[in-house]
Amino acid sequence: MIIDSHAHVMLPQERQIEMMKQAGIERTILFATTIHPETARDIDEFATELKNLYDILNGRKNPVQERIASTTELVQIVKNNPEKYIGFGPIPLGLSYDENLEWIERYILANHFKGIGELAPGTGQAGKLEPLFQASHEAGDLPLWVHTFFPLSFADIKVLLGLAAKYPAIPLIVGHLGGVNWLDTLKAVRELPNVYLDLSATFTTVAPAFAIQEYPERTLFSSDAPYASPLVARSILEQIVPDKQVLQEVLGGNIARLLNL
Amino acid sequence: MIIDSHAHVMLPQERQIEMMKQAGIERTILFATTIHPETARDIDEFATELKNLYDILNGRKNPVQERIASTTELVQIVKNNPEKYIGFGPIPLGLSYDENLEWIERYILANHFKGIGELAPGTGQAGKLEPLFQASHEAGDLPLWVHTFFPLSFADIKVLLGLAAKYPAIPLIVGHLGGVNWLDTLKAVRELPNVYLDLSATFTTVAPAFAIQEYPERTLFSSDAPYASPLVARSILEQIVPDKQVLQEVLGGNIARLLNL
Repeated sequence: MIIDSHAHVMLPQERQIEMMKQAGIERTILFATTIHPETARDIDEFATELKNLYDILNGRKNPVQERIASTTELVQIVKNNPEKYIGFGPIPLGLSYDENLEWIERYILANHFKGIGELAPGTGQAGKLEPLFQASHEAGDLPLWVHTFFPLSFADIKVLLGLAAKYPAIPLIVGHLGGVNWLDTLKAVRELPNVYLDLSATFTTVAPAFAIQEYPERTLFSSDAPYASPLVARSILEQIVPDKQVLQEVLGGNIARLLNL
Repeated sequence: MIIDSHAHVMLPQERQIEMMKQAGIERTILFATTIHPETARDIDEFATELKNLYDILNGRKNPVQERIASTTELVQIVKNNPEKYIGFGPIPLGLSYDENLEWIERYILANHFKGIGELAPGTGQAGKLEPLFQASHEAGDLPLWVHTFFPLSFADIKVLLGLAAKYPAIPLIVGHLGGVNWLDTLKAVRELPNVYLDLSATFTTVAPAFAIQEYPERTLFSSDAPYASPLVARSILEQIVPDKQVLQEVLGGNIARLLNL
């Protein structure tokens, strides 16, 4: 089965379903969004959407209310197409252990989401995720999906991987493969079997090629739609992975095993 | 004609020619290289190649000798396939006006190269390119190709665009579209008709999509091989550009007009 392991809610929904169909994607692990850049018709409208996102990430807009609203949207969309979508739910950054656990019970488990994300700590903030690792462990070791492209440095990624080493039962999905730090990230995860590598936001095809060569069972195809087209993301992998059996695992088998689909 | 407007010399050459053929690319604007990452068989060998590159960029290896050697390699390879390749020649960063002019005459014009690059100033160093702009103007306004992905910040890119404004007869090719600063870069080049946008190293398909929408006559298809596969780079654009006439210009017409091919 071909599974897009990371895409955000897009509007209108018909367009997202159509894009999945065009790319031959049977299921999508769907993440909430607080903005809808896919509706922007030009760079000014796109910039306005991004500004809204930064206002939330930086706390100028209420991150809790925004995440509850985007969770409500995600729940409804998954409910409308349960055979196509599996949800991962958002959570505000910086909650205490108790607050994380309460949020997980109320907004993640109650909504039958299979994991938590997209988590996007800023530079120097990755350590704030530790109470969430603890709460996720208490709640049954839910997978965590963390954005590791810009603005994270490799120092931030090392903090994150330190948490993965400390909580080895929790699957950690390293979103976007460490960004420009992909090579150091690949070297650093060798002894961390609970770390999975998300292959979206590929700016050099060398990165996913080596990632898959080194970790064929821990690399996950995803589009990060609407930031990339699912068809483009799939065709990149089809062109760089020569082994058809490995390709099949990366395109769906690995995430299916991780989430018990 | 389909023209890959930016790729580096790859070894063995038969492989590069084969990759062009697979991607339906008729001509490639070929750039020198001081390393050959395409020969790396695993991440350790790839890391060794990158270390060699950083040693040259940081001056630990002699950047002048390395660039003369890579120019010699490029000259020979272009000479072996003059119907397939057009060369852009390298130049060390930080030369004076006179040194730049001497280098251009000796290593660029004498070798019939059509432009200069890849230039890769570090953070805070873009201003060091001004003597090169002056010398290029004196030598007939040769196009300059500048890497603008990491480690450049938008402050660096603004310095670079300031030089483009000051020397409006010199075509400046903004390599990799400004990287994570692509949106600010797109906004900043509106009144700079001598600035061209290179579409390689795409980590989000939104970036080239808006770049082409805003500047259909100034956007240039390229692979940046060996850092990305030419076929992948071409298929990304084919999937995101709905207008076939625009696509044809981006895939070759624009660079052909710029270089009078």
